[in-house]
Amino acid sequence: MSKGKVCLAYSGGLDTSIILAWLLEQGYEVVAFLANIGQEEDFEAAREKALKIGATKFIVSDVRKEFVEEVLFPAVQVNAIYENVYLLGTSLARPVIAKAQIEVAEQEGCFAVAHGCTGKGNDQVRFELSFYALKPDVVCIAPWRDPEFFERFAGRNDLLNYAAEKDIPVAQTKAKPWSTDENMAHISFEAGILEDPNTTPPKDMWKLTVDPEDAPDKPEFFDVHFEKGKPVKLVLENKTEVTDPVEIFLTANAIARRNGVGRIDIVENRFIGIKSRGCYETPGLTLLRTTHIDLEGLTVDREVRSIRDTFVTPTYSKLLYNGLYFTPEGEYVRTMIQPSQNTVNGVVRAKAYKGNVYNLGRYSETEKLYDATESSMDELTGFHPQEAGGFITTQAIRIKKYGESVREKGKFLGL
Amino acid sequence: MSKGKVCLAYSGGLDTSIILAWLLEQGYEVVAFLANIGQEEDFEAAREKALKIGATKFIVSDVRKEFVEEVLFPAVQVNAIYENVYLLGTSLARPVIAKAQIEVAEQEGCFAVAHGCTGKGNDQVRFELSFYALKPDVVCIAPWRDPEFFERFAGRNDLLNYAAEKDIPVAQTKAKPWSTDENMAHISFEAGILEDPNTTPPKDMWKLTVDPEDAPDKPEFFDVHFEKGKPVKLVLENKTEVTDPVEIFLTANAIARRNGVGRIDIVENRFIGIKSRGCYETPGLTLLRTTHIDLEGLTVDREVRSIRDTFVTPTYSKLLYNGLYFTPEGEYVRTMIQPSQNTVNGVVRAKAYKGNVYNLGRYSETEKLYDATESSMDELTGFHPQEAGGFITTQAIRIKKYGESVREKGKFLGL
Amino acid sequence: MSKGKVCLAYSGGLDTSIILAWLLEQGYEVVAFLANIGQEEDFEAAREKALKIGATKFIVSDVRKEFVEEVLFPAVQVNAIYENVYLLGTSLARPVIAKAQIEVAEQEGCFAVAHGCTGKGNDQVRFELSFYALKPDVVCIAPWRDPEFFERFAGRNDLLNYAAEKDIPVAQTKAKPWSTDENMAHISFEAGILEDPNTTPPKDMWKLTVDPEDAPDKPEFFDVHFEKGKPVKLVLENKTEVTDPVEIFLTANAIARRNGVGRIDIVENRFIGIKSRGCYETPGLTLLRTTHIDLEGLTVDREVRSIRDTFVTPTYSKLLYNGLYFTPEGEYVRTMIQPSQNTVNGVVRAKAYKGNVYNLGRYSETEKLYDATESSMDELTGFHPQEAGGFITTQAIRIKKYGESVREKGKFLGL
Amino acid sequence: MSKGKVCLAYSGGLDTSIILAWLLEQGYEVVAFLANIGQEEDFEAAREKALKIGATKFIVSDVRKEFVEEVLFPAVQVNAIYENVYLLGTSLARPVIAKAQIEVAEQEGCFAVAHGCTGKGNDQVRFELSFYALKPDVVCIAPWRDPEFFERFAGRNDLLNYAAEKDIPVAQTKAKPWSTDENMAHISFEAGILEDPNTTPPKDMWKLTVDPEDAPDKPEFFDVHFEKGKPVKLVLENKTEVTDPVEIFLTANAIARRNGVGRIDIVENRFIGIKSRGCYETPGLTLLRTTHIDLEGLTVDREVRSIRDTFVTPTYSKLLYNGLYFTPEGEYVRTMIQPSQNTVNGVVRAKAYKGNVYNLGRYSETEKLYDATESSMDELTGFHPQEAGGFITTQAIRIKKYGESVREKGKFLGL
Repeated sequence: MSKGKVCLAYSGGLDTSIILAWLLEQGYEVVAFLANIGQEEDFEAAREKALKIGATKFIVSDVRKEFVEEVLFPAVQVNAIYENVYLLGTSLARPVIAKAQIEVAEQEGCFAVAHGCTGKGNDQVRFELSFYALKPDVVCIAPWRDPEFFERFAGRNDLLNYAAEKDIPVAQTKAKPWSTDENMAHISFEAGILEDPNTTPPKDMWKLTVDPEDAPDKPEFFDVHFEKGKPVKLVLENKTEVTDPVEIFLTANAIARRNGVGRIDIVENRFIGIKSRGCYETPGLTLLRTTHIDLEGLTVDREVRSIRDTFVTPTYSKLLYNGLYFTPEGEYVRTMIQPSQNTVNGVVRAKAYKGNVYNLGRYSETEKLYDATESSMDELTGFHPQEAGGFITTQAIRIKKYGESVREKGKFLGL
Repeated sequence: MSKGKVCLAYSGGLDTSIILAWLLEQGYEVVAFLANIGQEEDFEAAREKALKIGATKFIVSDVRKEFVEEVLFPAVQVNAIYENVYLLGTSLARPVIAKAQIEVAEQEGCFAVAHGCTGKGNDQVRFELSFYALKPDVVCIAPWRDPEFFERFAGRNDLLNYAAEKDIPVAQTKAKPWSTDENMAHISFEAGILEDPNTTPPKDMWKLTVDPEDAPDKPEFFDVHFEKGKPVKLVLENKTEVTDPVEIFLTANAIARRNGVGRIDIVENRFIGIKSRGCYETPGLTLLRTTHIDLEGLTVDREVRSIRDTFVTPTYSKLLYNGLYFTPEGEYVRTMIQPSQNTVNGVVRAKAYKGNVYNLGRYSETEKLYDATESSMDELTGFHPQEAGGFITTQAIRIKKYGESVREKGKFLGL
Repeated sequence: MSKGKVCLAYSGGLDTSIILAWLLEQGYEVVAFLANIGQEEDFEAAREKALKIGATKFIVSDVRKEFVEEVLFPAVQVNAIYENVYLLGTSLARPVIAKAQIEVAEQEGCFAVAHGCTGKGNDQVRFELSFYALKPDVVCIAPWRDPEFFERFAGRNDLLNYAAEKDIPVAQTKAKPWSTDENMAHISFEAGILEDPNTTPPKDMWKLTVDPEDAPDKPEFFDVHFEKGKPVKLVLENKTEVTDPVEIFLTANAIARRNGVGRIDIVENRFIGIKSRGCYETPGLTLLRTTHIDLEGLTVDREVRSIRDTFVTPTYSKLLYNGLYFTPEGEYVRTMIQPSQNTVNGVVRAKAYKGNVYNLGRYSETEKLYDATESSMDELTGFHPQEAGGFITTQAIRIKKYGESVREKGKFLGL
Repeated sequence: MSKGKVCLAYSGGLDTSIILAWLLEQGYEVVAFLANIGQEEDFEAAREKALKIGATKFIVSDVRKEFVEEVLFPAVQVNAIYENVYLLGTSLARPVIAKAQIEVAEQEGCFAVAHGCTGKGNDQVRFELSFYALKPDVVCIAPWRDPEFFERFAGRNDLLNYAAEKDIPVAQTKAKPWSTDENMAHISFEAGILEDPNTTPPKDMWKLTVDPEDAPDKPEFFDVHFEKGKPVKLVLENKTEVTDPVEIFLTANAIARRNGVGRIDIVENRFIGIKSRGCYETPGLTLLRTTHIDLEGLTVDREVRSIRDTFVTPTYSKLLYNGLYFTPEGEYVRTMIQPSQNTVNGVVRAKAYKGNVYNLGRYSETEKLYDATESSMDELTGFHPQEAGGFITTQAIRIKKYGESVREKGKFLGL
């Protein structure tokens, strides 16, 4: 008698293969689920392995288009970034995967979902909060938080022995001294030798991008066209035009990858309160974000930008990082993105060169907030300089008053 | 009979020379003032010219040390940045210069201060609000906002004719098709051909930094040591150690300049509400800010950082940009910087290469918030993974509740 | 030959009557405009006076419905408040009036608009920024900022003399020692004897509300029904139901007025940087805001509320105060109001009594975020108390780590 | 053999008496701890009962002075408030009690601390996070989260039976249909019949304050003197002056209590994500907060106040509510309070009347930011009205530009 059907997020790797076998041993029926979110993966090998171990079914959901259109492009619009540096590559993927997994769970009649995330990381939170939001009565099975499981599999050898016992094929390649997670937007590296934050990652760790030192000696030029804040066309140096959203993203990736753009190496703060070191490659998203910010300078009103930068960007970035996409606040903050982007229409001309994207120029055929005449230091058309004096002296009313009191008491704090 | 003494911010250039002559013509006595804030300038030539034109005195104030210690290093501590990109090189210099000019005005008995800023820019605001704060009864003379002046000198020819008439020497070099402002932290380029935001700046415009494409083919390694968030030592690849604040800043500049670090090209929003295109080189500050942010990842508590990033950094950056250093809010926000930096003690190892600074590793001998054991995915010492489950399910209480109502009504907004 | 048509905001009072005559004297043709925004005013007397003085036309625009539906109810939804106390009664009216005035100006072919606001107040800013936004090429005539005018009319006697000269009727009532501004939402009192912030306003100054000490000795009960955050029904103690928006507002006013609700007396900070003392009566808006906040407790998610309270309410309130309704940021922040209100459906039972509104109970038939079972301290259905332990210990990871470092160094700042 | 010493927060009530007996039964030695934080409590009876049940020691810590000086007055300075309404009476007490309990635990050699908080509330979080911060290696025993305990004591009868079995005296008074928590600042009521948010609390529930309807028919006048934002003197109607901090607080309480000031009834959001209904009486704190806000209007710069209101007040209030006093962010935000208060020197004249505090006037002998001449609508000394025109037109540059684009496309969002 089965204890019921479980939908397991299955990658084909050692950990989730062991979990699959263990769930079967516990008496569950298991549907293996794998999201195609643009990672380099042998889906067919995963299918064979899952079924061989004993999964009832193996289901791949292709979420690439949804990932780009519904999640990555809004992230570009809002310039999402966590702790000044991290472009949230993993965080962005989680809601898409979780949604697909719940859909499979519902369609296959699974009462539970399972995953192979550790008990110390962010992903357990991101997946489970999404699961609970989307299907509040779902049961979450997290073997790495279950003492029965984690005490039994305390080291890699325990896993290998169990694999041998259960006849689970194990890749012969030596395990890398770090772990990775990959999707169309990025790859992450953490754990293992990276746990010493003073260890410089070895050159061969990086995977998606060429080392900037090995990148071409000539810059590569390209134009990004935006409409309402979303990339709608990418024009390459050879005049090739790309307009399909997924293709735009992949092409941005390609340009950035071959020019070494998008590597970072940081110590970040996980949701559960542990500091953690991570290295990331986020090539295309870096390129799109950089050009998007540039176009906002030309086309977005100062105060709208300030409100968006101060309130919306950090709030949305933090909630994405913490796995709170499917929440009331997630919904609320998402409604604040598009209204800030209605004027972000135009083109940024840029180049990628040895690790950087440089903005070279930008224009908009529809937006008029930038006005070269008005801006010009040589022109006074329609401008009365003496009025700027009133602007200053009126603001000075409050400041003079305070300055008087400071003079009585001493000096300003600081200078 | 003099109409009184005026302290004029005098650069030795055409504009302020004309203003000097014009002020004399108006019946003022003029003390010419020039701040040495690290710009490349022929101070002696300026002196001779000022005195030749008729200034009573020419006074240079050396504010370099104060600029670095009191303004630039706090800007590093707070990661100051405006509109995501601009490191505020000009804005940071203004309060230092204004303070020195007011000191000269007071010591020389001037009732007024004068400057050559245009009526469309930020600098008029930054200077005058500082003047009014420091000496509330001062009179500000801004000829470029005075119709009598700006109508008389409507074009460059009017200036040249007046110079000839007044026997003011004019440099024979052809005027560049943009204007610049320089200090130890940066140089700005704006106006002229840059007013078309789609014009890529010519290669020979950039002055402080080498073109990344011409930068060395080998990275240059260095270590930055911080104490309480301020740079206290810079160790070069050849093990040279620099510890004097001004020397640290100049050395950071040197490394960044020869590796093409710190160029930006943006459209920004001026305080008076005009969009404006500016190109900037901010080499050393870019290098120090990048490494400082990195060390904060290792040493600053997550919530302190979040509060600082969300509230303090944007507020302080905006008020600096708007010339509000000497204000109640300027003082108030400055008190918020140091308390966020007490744990920022440690070293960042980095390299500069063709336009970028890459952080390679970081360590702190005193701060323990990062704990490799705690962080480790392979270790459970002192950690009970099942408790993370409670963390998640407790947070899920609210989210499940909402998820139920979403299921009744349809789907989440977004995915 | 007329210098063109001007649309003057005309109240029928002494100041704007003088301005009307003066504009005619300057050679303008004048269309007198008066908004009916719910103030107690003799519109017919104003018409007769305007035409007698020489206005070409006198036009009253009834904006009461628009004021309630488009401005006051959204203010209730967002709990608008300035500097903790002021409910923005004047600020809220300005955009409605300005829009109506521009409509009249356009329809009557006026090239300019004029108003009688002083040069020290907020209203000049609120009106003119609205005028410029709605009709960027409009000319604003502000006689009280024109030296020719304000030097000529330096005191009340100058006004009276000119009135006599121009045969302008002057009300025989003695001027009150303060000025007022009234609309459906409130009345303001400022200037005159109120300029000493330590002067308690005389009892007979207050106009809209009864003195709490004279209010009925029995509380008055009522229920407010909200849908999507807007009041949709007011049920009186006698079971009368009011559902029309304007009627709801007027009824809320009536309840609050007779129970002394909505008086405040503050020193506030004007946009131009001057501190100013104001007394206000805002009866109905106080009542609606108080009950609305109460219902939000029952029906709005914690994080949505926090984001709205922290970001949206203060930002919107400040921009309303500063006259920035018709701006990009005004529009942007307005889009953030409704999405926070979709769950604000339900009823608040309350009573008004001697200056206060007390919430007595609240319920919602549709919203389920409050769950008495879940909340109950006596019930554990669906709740596993041990999981709260994991919630706490997981959050304690970061805090323990910091606690260790504090113990080494001394004690926490504060306790 | 004892399993070790535990310091139990002991109130003398049924729950903690059962817990005391149960801990002894489990083999612990127990030190009973009770904080005197101003609640009405029979400390001697609690002592006798604790010792009778078997506690090794009973220790009362008097924390009233520390509570007022280190916690309540800073809360007044920062105008602390949660979700617009709740003055945080319980939250404020928790860090003080937790600190005293840890001090007792350390001094008595206890390895653990225990409390009687439920698993659904805020207090468990507030206490335990404080315990862990102050003594990171402490063990927290929370019986109401321990299945062994809460399953054994599933209802009140189980408690009573156990009390009988263990010979624990039980008060003969009938349990009230709600629970309360009291300290010098407030009393809270929740649970029981209050769990239906539409149930109006019975008149006899309220304890600290007189019903406003029964309050005196004459207002009571008083003056509050503040220095650097802290109350330093309270002058009663009869001219009695109170200057000791604890006495000031108690006197504020007395005035407010007899005039029915400080009752609220809300639905709030607990940290663990459950909505909860609470009724609170916070008499003196309401009075002090109201007058403090009033004085800030007179004495604090607009921008300082805005920054404090927008950033500091909500951040500090939320972290207090969530029990995060002893955290890095708690410390950080506390450093932001005093610098905003240096100018808050002066006096507020006010009256209490039937549920309300009304500010009647305010003055400061030292602070000059308010300037009646400058503020006056009748005076132009030192003011040039035409400069306000420049203030407006300069701000209008950006807005006109936007207005043009709106005219092309339609109308502004909103009006």
